[in-house]
Amino acid sequence: MTRDPRYDILFEPVKIGPVTAKNRFYQVPHCTGMGWLRPRMLAAMRKVKAEGGWGVVCTEYNSIHPSSDDLPHPSASLWDDNDIRAHSLMTDAVHQHGALAGAELWYGGARTPNLLTRITPMDVGSFPNLAGHPLQTRAMDKEDIRTFRRWHRRAAIRARDAGFDIVYVYATHGYLLSNFLNPRINTRCDEYGGSLENRTRLVRELIEETREAIGDRCAVAVRFAADDKIGEDGEPVFGERRDMLAMLADLPDLWDINISDYSVEMGASRFIKEAPLEPYMSWVRSVTTKPVVTVGRFTSPDTMARQVRSGIVDLIGAARPSIADPFLPKKIEEGRLSEIRECIGCNVCYSGDSIGVPIRCTQNPTMGEEWRRGWHPESLPPKTSHARVLIVGAGPAGMEAARALGQRGYEVMLAEAGRDLGGRVTREAKLPGMREYIRVRDYREQQLRKMANVEVFRESHMSAADVFEVDASHVVIATGSNWRPELFDGERFLPAYDPEAAAHVLTPDEIMDGKLPAGPTLVFDGDGYYMGGVIAEHLHAAGLQVTYATAYDSVSNWSGNTGDRARIRRHLTQLGIPLLTARTLKGFDGIEAVLRGTYGGTDERIAVGHVVMVTGRTPNDRLYRELKDEAGNSDLPFTLTRIGDCEAPAIIAAAILSGHRYALALDTTVDIDSEPLRDRVEITCGDKNPKGLTSVPAPTPRHGR
Amino acid sequence: MTRDPRYDILFEPVKIGPVTAKNRFYQVPHCTGMGWLRPRMLAAMRKVKAEGGWGVVCTEYNSIHPSSDDLPHPSASLWDDNDIRAHSLMTDAVHQHGALAGAELWYGGARTPNLLTRITPMDVGSFPNLAGHPLQTRAMDKEDIRTFRRWHRRAAIRARDAGFDIVYVYATHGYLLSNFLNPRINTRCDEYGGSLENRTRLVRELIEETREAIGDRCAVAVRFAADDKIGEDGEPVFGERRDMLAMLADLPDLWDINISDYSVEMGASRFIKEAPLEPYMSWVRSVTTKPVVTVGRFTSPDTMARQVRSGIVDLIGAARPSIADPFLPKKIEEGRLSEIRECIGCNVCYSGDSIGVPIRCTQNPTMGEEWRRGWHPESLPPKTSHARVLIVGAGPAGMEAARALGQRGYEVMLAEAGRDLGGRVTREAKLPGMREYIRVRDYREQQLRKMANVEVFRESHMSAADVFEVDASHVVIATGSNWRPELFDGERFLPAYDPEAAAHVLTPDEIMDGKLPAGPTLVFDGDGYYMGGVIAEHLHAAGLQVTYATAYDSVSNWSGNTGDRARIRRHLTQLGIPLLTARTLKGFDGIEAVLRGTYGGTDERIAVGHVVMVTGRTPNDRLYRELKDEAGNSDLPFTLTRIGDCEAPAIIAAAILSGHRYALALDTTVDIDSEPLRDRVEITCGDKNPKGLTSVPAPTPRHGR
Repeated sequence: MTRDPRYDILFEPVKIGPVTAKNRFYQVPHCTGMGWLRPRMLAAMRKVKAEGGWGVVCTEYNSIHPSSDDLPHPSASLWDDNDIRAHSLMTDAVHQHGALAGAELWYGGARTPNLLTRITPMDVGSFPNLAGHPLQTRAMDKEDIRTFRRWHRRAAIRARDAGFDIVYVYATHGYLLSNFLNPRINTRCDEYGGSLENRTRLVRELIEETREAIGDRCAVAVRFAADDKIGEDGEPVFGERRDMLAMLADLPDLWDINISDYSVEMGASRFIKEAPLEPYMSWVRSVTTKPVVTVGRFTSPDTMARQVRSGIVDLIGAARPSIADPFLPKKIEEGRLSEIRECIGCNVCYSGDSIGVPIRCTQNPTMGEEWRRGWHPESLPPKTSHARVLIVGAGPAGMEAARALGQRGYEVMLAEAGRDLGGRVTREAKLPGMREYIRVRDYREQQLRKMANVEVFRESHMSAADVFEVDASHVVIATGSNWRPELFDGERFLPAYDPEAAAHVLTPDEIMDGKLPAGPTLVFDGDGYYMGGVIAEHLHAAGLQVTYATAYDSVSNWSGNTGDRARIRRHLTQLGIPLLTARTLKGFDGIEAVLRGTYGGTDERIAVGHVVMVTGRTPNDRLYRELKDEAGNSDLPFTLTRIGDCEAPAIIAAAILSGHRYALALDTTVDIDSEPLRDRVEITCGDKNPKGLTSVPAPTPRHGR
Repeated sequence: MTRDPRYDILFEPVKIGPVTAKNRFYQVPHCTGMGWLRPRMLAAMRKVKAEGGWGVVCTEYNSIHPSSDDLPHPSASLWDDNDIRAHSLMTDAVHQHGALAGAELWYGGARTPNLLTRITPMDVGSFPNLAGHPLQTRAMDKEDIRTFRRWHRRAAIRARDAGFDIVYVYATHGYLLSNFLNPRINTRCDEYGGSLENRTRLVRELIEETREAIGDRCAVAVRFAADDKIGEDGEPVFGERRDMLAMLADLPDLWDINISDYSVEMGASRFIKEAPLEPYMSWVRSVTTKPVVTVGRFTSPDTMARQVRSGIVDLIGAARPSIADPFLPKKIEEGRLSEIRECIGCNVCYSGDSIGVPIRCTQNPTMGEEWRRGWHPESLPPKTSHARVLIVGAGPAGMEAARALGQRGYEVMLAEAGRDLGGRVTREAKLPGMREYIRVRDYREQQLRKMANVEVFRESHMSAADVFEVDASHVVIATGSNWRPELFDGERFLPAYDPEAAAHVLTPDEIMDGKLPAGPTLVFDGDGYYMGGVIAEHLHAAGLQVTYATAYDSVSNWSGNTGDRARIRRHLTQLGIPLLTARTLKGFDGIEAVLRGTYGGTDERIAVGHVVMVTGRTPNDRLYRELKDEAGNSDLPFTLTRIGDCEAPAIIAAAILSGHRYALALDTTVDIDSEPLRDRVEITCGDKNPKGLTSVPAPTPRHGR
């Protein structure tokens, strides 16, 4: 296939100071949960993006000094020579594919607790830590500012020495430099505070000093917010931002623009759709002659081309779309649009950095597995036998297993009891805000349609006898799971309702099947991810009087990791849904529900005729167990494996991974004691001298002078 | 000094199967926030404990297989040969000092999310993850149990090969094995569930298989709970536990006993005092001939000796006391009781594992710094000059700086404006539950008293002129900080009250000074650590009608990291204090406070005559700034440094560290660009071949068969 000429504009080179990007696809800095802890994982992952056609591939935030330490969130670092070597793994790999490599220099200020290095964090003033740790920053004096500039310069030189082509001055996202710019925060009385010129001074100095140090070889980029901090989802307020940018307009080689509300910039698709920054970008390009990039979870080449043609940006920035599909540029270039694996905006990727573990992606099971499992998002090892595989159940796990096995060349039969493929995503995508989740199904359905070696059987309920009749060498059970009506008390599932009230207790599955309670309803959320809140919203939209209660202290507790917990609660509050936290359901008789405080206190009774329980799930593993039992002690004529929610109910990303892992492991020698590789400290015999443990010279730490 | 004969019993050797502990001091397994991520830090830290006289030094929980992966909480691991080498660093170091090394084999089950390895966790049944992640376990079938036993056996062999002397079967703390034992959880119908005998089967098999594999060289220990899971702080309920232990009584070589309520076992001193497990231990030693160990935050040698004499235990288990003072045994042995640095039970140590960063300790600033900063808890480098040091302020930072400088041999003047030393700890220790915090002061005051080269000046308020008069070569300002009456809105501190209501707004400092509001009072907690809850309790105890409100979703939010958040909330609930979460103070006129929902909704008005603001602090750095200004552009005749809360308000542990760091850095060449060492992946030139990134053979992962 060839490229649609409408998209030619996306493949024009863009000059960025002393370097040139081969096209307009620009992977902006994004966190990965890897950072300096996991350099080989990281390099292999960025390499795949370069291979997939991105003209620029950037690192995540790179701490310039141990006094900016974000652990447990894994940042990259540019502290020493080992960091230079570690980053070189990435820059070499990226250059190998003709892409530019960018490094974002970062200093956290009041956002970082320095829990590893235990050095006092510094900021414009003495502020409480913004991540909620019980510590304050030291107010930077002028000596601190001079020191900081030296650190930044040294880190820039290290970035150059590591082979980076673009080096960032990072002046947004509430980190140190954005606090210097912010008039509400920066009320300093010296030449770094007060007036617009004074507040901008430090950023200007850093741009100039970075250019002076490494500008002959590296472009200098600035990451900058186009708007002033505002309330929730109001119209953009540009305030003095335009003047500020204009003052610096042509100093850097590139402007990487975002906005002050991070929950819009990387908002979950439940609330924020493609290109949400467009209203903020109207004036940016008019005040600078330098190329401009911004993000917008762009997966449509039409949107991308329009962004460039209409003069909003010069480069198409992407974080999440490059995670879901590292080969997005190449697929557009080669006219393979139907093969694009579009980001669903679930933000599971972001949860890695939030929690302090490596990135995962719902759509792309190979994300983060490039080095440690040797996986590749596009290239799969060909089949090594003529085996036929029967997969029962076409939910996420079954579809991904079929797709990956099909790509490997196996003969696959995919049997689905219902008419629609997609399993839980097809059902959940109909709930409020969840529409984009259907992309999990659509991408796979489209690929399966093209595979002559994969047969899809709809409305094909399979009994154990049916399975034996198919005569497959491998049978995969991917029959998903169902929500349970009971409460999980930390030890077991037990009904929290009187037996006669059972008909008044519903599960999310029944709601998704179209059943609606009558009258006032309680949604009890013991699960703590998105489902409870979404069901409450769905019932509210159907006109019911809904109350939401959760055993957690927070509404949609786990969504804190995907960055939308606060937005969910604000949204449900705006809808007028009463939200009760730290409550357990103690009883329900069909007329009243009894709620008990998680921490004691007096029970509350609320008059509701129905309760929807969002607590836990039962694997639908009856067929799996029947086949196992059928076998008894004799061998089955096929291998039997359960995958996805049928093995263990979890998030969609886990089901996709499960299907992919099955497909990749087929016909290989599976050693269940093996492990994925770990990026870790390797201990060699040389380290084994215990005296070595104390003979390390004590580095003398800085102290506040 | 020599040992008090009353404590001779503590120094008797104890035979544990094939090995013998040289004394009764037993450092039980405890987490460190290091684990497999930070093996050199870990080995150096454990080495210091062995040096300090502990007869047994154990690791933290050691994952036996990648399907038990607790990240972001850093466990140790026994997955492969590199783990053997990493652990050998520790066992060699421990053996060097004549101690035994113990390894706790661990499988998490429903408590672990496997977010790094992405392998499905397994447990007795399909349960929701108990750490709140949106995933369930796979119910183990008999093949899984066989596989699990094989993993356990292999890990035990690796532990032996790494040089461990004691290997644990870990059957408590809600991890997999305790779930098998639990009748409410384990309702399996096969030979591993149902009856007491069946539920105990797996633990018995593991004990036998471990002994069979490595019992010739290693002792087999079992960690086991003495009670059934019960409600909050009730009387012990032993249920079938006695029968269960009796069934296994002489199978292992050692019983390491704890209880089912972890929040008692490692409870913060605010609620739980020394030896809380004693009522649970009454029968344990009578049903086994094997040595028994338990914990109890023992710091008193009298309590320890009594525990042994009265036949409760054979070995004195300790986690936190060994963290606060790794030399606790040696100090008892040498009759240096006044030098013991007693644990204050603040549980800041535990916050490391909670958050996913290395351990810290309030009392022992060297904890976790043994390798990376080369620090030692007892041995400090001698002074290298005849400098005189003036320290202004005898709070935690000033006292620790004076103590450490004094130990180094410097001439130190410690000037305190008040009559009492201790600063904030002296004040805070008078608040409800906080009594043990005074140990921070008492330990240091006792040491200072013995130092002829340290002079303490009480009631000596120092002006800038006074400082110049002292003629010191180094001046350290450690004047602490004060709580502010304003609200921090994320950008700046602003009054949230009408000007005329200012006199009705109090801070924790005023409360600690003895001031009491009159009538109904709101405590507004924007800080989120312990102070808000403690102040509310204090006012309640004074007979006031108190309401507590916090901007966080949780009461005493950060205390979740120290393991007492739930207990705090239950306690305040029991006292009848109304607890309002997710509220910001929007206004106060002296009669009513207006609370606004953090996530929107309708404002609430509550009738209160006073508000106590627990929000943020101002460093008391006036003297520091005056001296700086005095200097102008000329050089001061001394070096000038601020430490502790005066530099940046934080927790007590940070102030102690700050003082210690100052003392250690004096007269050394301070390179403020230097860093503490990092245990990290070292990249060498050999790694720099980018092809290496993809040429790694893909390890074939296990899948569910």
